[in-house]
Amino acid sequence: MTLSRKPEPKSEPRILLGPGPSMTHPRVMQAMTFPTVGHLDPQLLCLYGEEQELLRSVFGTQNEWTFALSGTGTSGMEAALANLLEPGDPVLIAIHGYFGERMAEISARQGALVDRLNRPLGEMFPVEEIDTALKKKNYKLLAIVHAETSTGAEQLHIPEIARSAHENGAMILLDTVTSLGGIPVEIDKWQVDAAYSASQKNLSAPSGLAPITMNSRARETIEKRKRPVTSFYLDLKSYANYWMGTHAYHHTASASVHFALTEALHILIEEGLLSAYQRYRSNAEKLWGGLEDLGASPFIPSEYRLPPLTTACVPDGIDPHQVRNRLLNEYNIEIASGFGALKDKVWRIGLMGYSSRTENIDLVLSALQDLMTDSNG
Amino acid sequence: MTLSRKPEPKSEPRILLGPGPSMTHPRVMQAMTFPTVGHLDPQLLCLYGEEQELLRSVFGTQNEWTFALSGTGTSGMEAALANLLEPGDPVLIAIHGYFGERMAEISARQGALVDRLNRPLGEMFPVEEIDTALKKKNYKLLAIVHAETSTGAEQLHIPEIARSAHENGAMILLDTVTSLGGIPVEIDKWQVDAAYSASQKNLSAPSGLAPITMNSRARETIEKRKRPVTSFYLDLKSYANYWMGTHAYHHTASASVHFALTEALHILIEEGLLSAYQRYRSNAEKLWGGLEDLGASPFIPSEYRLPPLTTACVPDGIDPHQVRNRLLNEYNIEIASGFGALKDKVWRIGLMGYSSRTENIDLVLSALQDLMTDSNG
Repeated sequence: MTLSRKPEPKSEPRILLGPGPSMTHPRVMQAMTFPTVGHLDPQLLCLYGEEQELLRSVFGTQNEWTFALSGTGTSGMEAALANLLEPGDPVLIAIHGYFGERMAEISARQGALVDRLNRPLGEMFPVEEIDTALKKKNYKLLAIVHAETSTGAEQLHIPEIARSAHENGAMILLDTVTSLGGIPVEIDKWQVDAAYSASQKNLSAPSGLAPITMNSRARETIEKRKRPVTSFYLDLKSYANYWMGTHAYHHTASASVHFALTEALHILIEEGLLSAYQRYRSNAEKLWGGLEDLGASPFIPSEYRLPPLTTACVPDGIDPHQVRNRLLNEYNIEIASGFGALKDKVWRIGLMGYSSRTENIDLVLSALQDLMTDSNG
Repeated sequence: MTLSRKPEPKSEPRILLGPGPSMTHPRVMQAMTFPTVGHLDPQLLCLYGEEQELLRSVFGTQNEWTFALSGTGTSGMEAALANLLEPGDPVLIAIHGYFGERMAEISARQGALVDRLNRPLGEMFPVEEIDTALKKKNYKLLAIVHAETSTGAEQLHIPEIARSAHENGAMILLDTVTSLGGIPVEIDKWQVDAAYSASQKNLSAPSGLAPITMNSRARETIEKRKRPVTSFYLDLKSYANYWMGTHAYHHTASASVHFALTEALHILIEEGLLSAYQRYRSNAEKLWGGLEDLGASPFIPSEYRLPPLTTACVPDGIDPHQVRNRLLNEYNIEIASGFGALKDKVWRIGLMGYSSRTENIDLVLSALQDLMTDSNG
C-alpha cells in the first residue's frame, strides 16, 4: 500500500505520426483519470447513452445498435464478421491492402466461404469490378476497407458499391478504422449495413475501444442466427443487452476508457466534423508539399489519397528503416515503415486527430531533411 | 481542437466495494496518464518484459507464455478455452457458480464436447468427486474456477485436483479472476497448466487487461492445433509473437493500460504478496465480524470463505435491492446483489486491492446499520 514512490514514465514523450495511436488529447487524458466507477453504475450506464449519441453523429447514423466494444479495432473487425457470418456463409472480401486480407482471414476462421477479390497495393476498386464479382454468387456479405491503413488509399464510391451489394442481395460491411472522424463517413446516407472503427486514430483517445454500428438488416441477421456466435466475448446481442434495455451484465467494461472516448468525441463534435476534416486535409496538403520537396512523393494518387495517413516513397539510396529508427531515437518522432510488399519502399506518416497540427508537420519534415541529407552524405 | 472546456466527471467518486472493479490506486492512475506511445515502440516492448516478470511473480510461475491480453477477464476466459480446445474435444467443467457456467457456455460455442459437473451454489468440490468424474472419459481439459465471484467461495485442494487431472490425462485450466493477487496462487507449485485473470480486482488497475499464463504442455497443445483458433483477436500464438521474439504486429495494444497494470503490479510486489494476503484477510475478518453483529452473516463457511469477496446473507424483512441502491445513491458506496438463485438472498461485498482499507469497512458497516435500521423501522 506504499504511496512513497511516484511513478515515472520510462519512455520519452513521443510525437506520434504513425498509423495510430495518435497523440491523446490533454482533455481526454484528464477524463481518463476520473474516479473509477463500476461497470453497472447508473452513472456509467447514463454515459453510454451520451457516448452512443456522439458515436451516431460521427458515424452519420441513427442505428440503435451503435456502441463501443471493449477491445481494439481488430476486435471490432472480428465482432462484425463473427456476428454477421455463420459457417458456410458465402462472403466476398474486396482486398486492397493488409486489412482487407485480415478480414478474409477472420472470416475463414469463422467457417465462412471466403472469396477474395484483390487489387494491387495502392490501388482502389472501380465499382464495376465489385459489381461483376457480386453477380457471380449469392453472397451474404461484401466486406471492404474504407481507408487502408497499410497503403493510405481511400476506397471511393462506397454509396455505389453499397447499392451494388444490395442489388445483388448482399449486405455491406465497411472498415472505418482509419476513416472515422478523419474523412466523411455517412453510414445511413451511403446505406452501409455495418461498420466498425477504433478509438486511437482520428478520435485521439487511447486504444482499447472499438466503435461499431449495425443497421436493422444487420441486426436482424444477427438476431435470427441459427447458432450462437462463436465468440461469447464479442457477441453483439449481449453487448446490446448490456448497453441498452435491461443493462444485463456481460463483461466488466472499463469506465476509464469510456470517459476518455466520450470526451474525445465531444472534442470532435465541438470542433465540428466538417471543420476537422478540413483541418486534416489542409495539414495533409502541407505535408504532401513538403514530401514532394524532399523527393519523397506520396505513393497514392491525389484523387484517392487519405489525409489522415500518407505513404511516402523512400528516395533511392535511403535506408528507410535506419531513417525511421533515427527519427524515433534522436527526434522522438514515430512514423511507420511500409507493410508487406511496401515494407522497404514507403514510410507511413499519420496526421490523425490531435497529432494533426502544423508544428508536427514542420518537425517531421525538418527531421526527415536532416536525416536524408545525413544518409546520402 | 478547443481546449477551453475542462472535462468534469459526471459521476460522484464511488467507494467501490463490489465484486470488481476495485478502486484504482492513485499511483496507477498517474501511470495511466504517461504520454501515449505506439504499440510497437521499443520502450513499450521493453515494458512488456518487465510486466511479464511481475505477472510471473504474482502467478507463481516461470511460464514463458505469461502476458496480458487486450480485453477484460472474460476475454482471458475465452482465449484460454478457445486456444486449448478444438471442436469435438471433450472438456469437463466443474461448476460451483456462475463463472463456471460461463466457461461451459464458451467451451460449447467453440464446438467442444462439454460435460458439466455441478455443485450447489456456495459449495465447493471435494477432490474425490472431480476425480471420479475425470475417470469417466478421456477429457482433454478440466476447467474450474478458483475463487467464484458469484458466491465468494474458494475452491480448495487445487494441487490435488491438478494431480487427478494429470493422472487421468487431462490438463487443468484455473480461473483466477478473483483470486490473483488476493489469495495465494501458485501455478507452478500446484502444476496448473493454464490460468487467466483480470486487471481490475485485486490488482487495482482499471479493467481492460486479462493476465494469462500457459505452461509448456498447454503451449504445445496450442502450437500443435489441427486448425487455427476461431478467434484471430485472441489467438495466443500471435500474442506470443507480439510480446516476445520478433514482436510482430497483431493488434494496437494500449500503452496506457499497460503503464497502469505494470504500476499496479509493482505496488503489489513492493508490499509483498504475503503481506498483501494478510492485509486482505485481517480486513475481511473485521468485515465478517461486523456483518455478524448486523445479523447479515457471511454465506460461505469460514473454511473456504474468500477474503476478497464476501457474500452476506440479507436478514429477513430487509429488501436487499433497496438497501443496495440507497447505499450507492446516498452513501456513494457500491456493493453488488447476489447472482442467479442468490439474487435476493445475499449482498456481495468486495475488499479487493486498494479497496481493502479499514476506513472502507467502517463506512460500509455503519451505512448498512443505518439503512437496515431505517428499513426495519
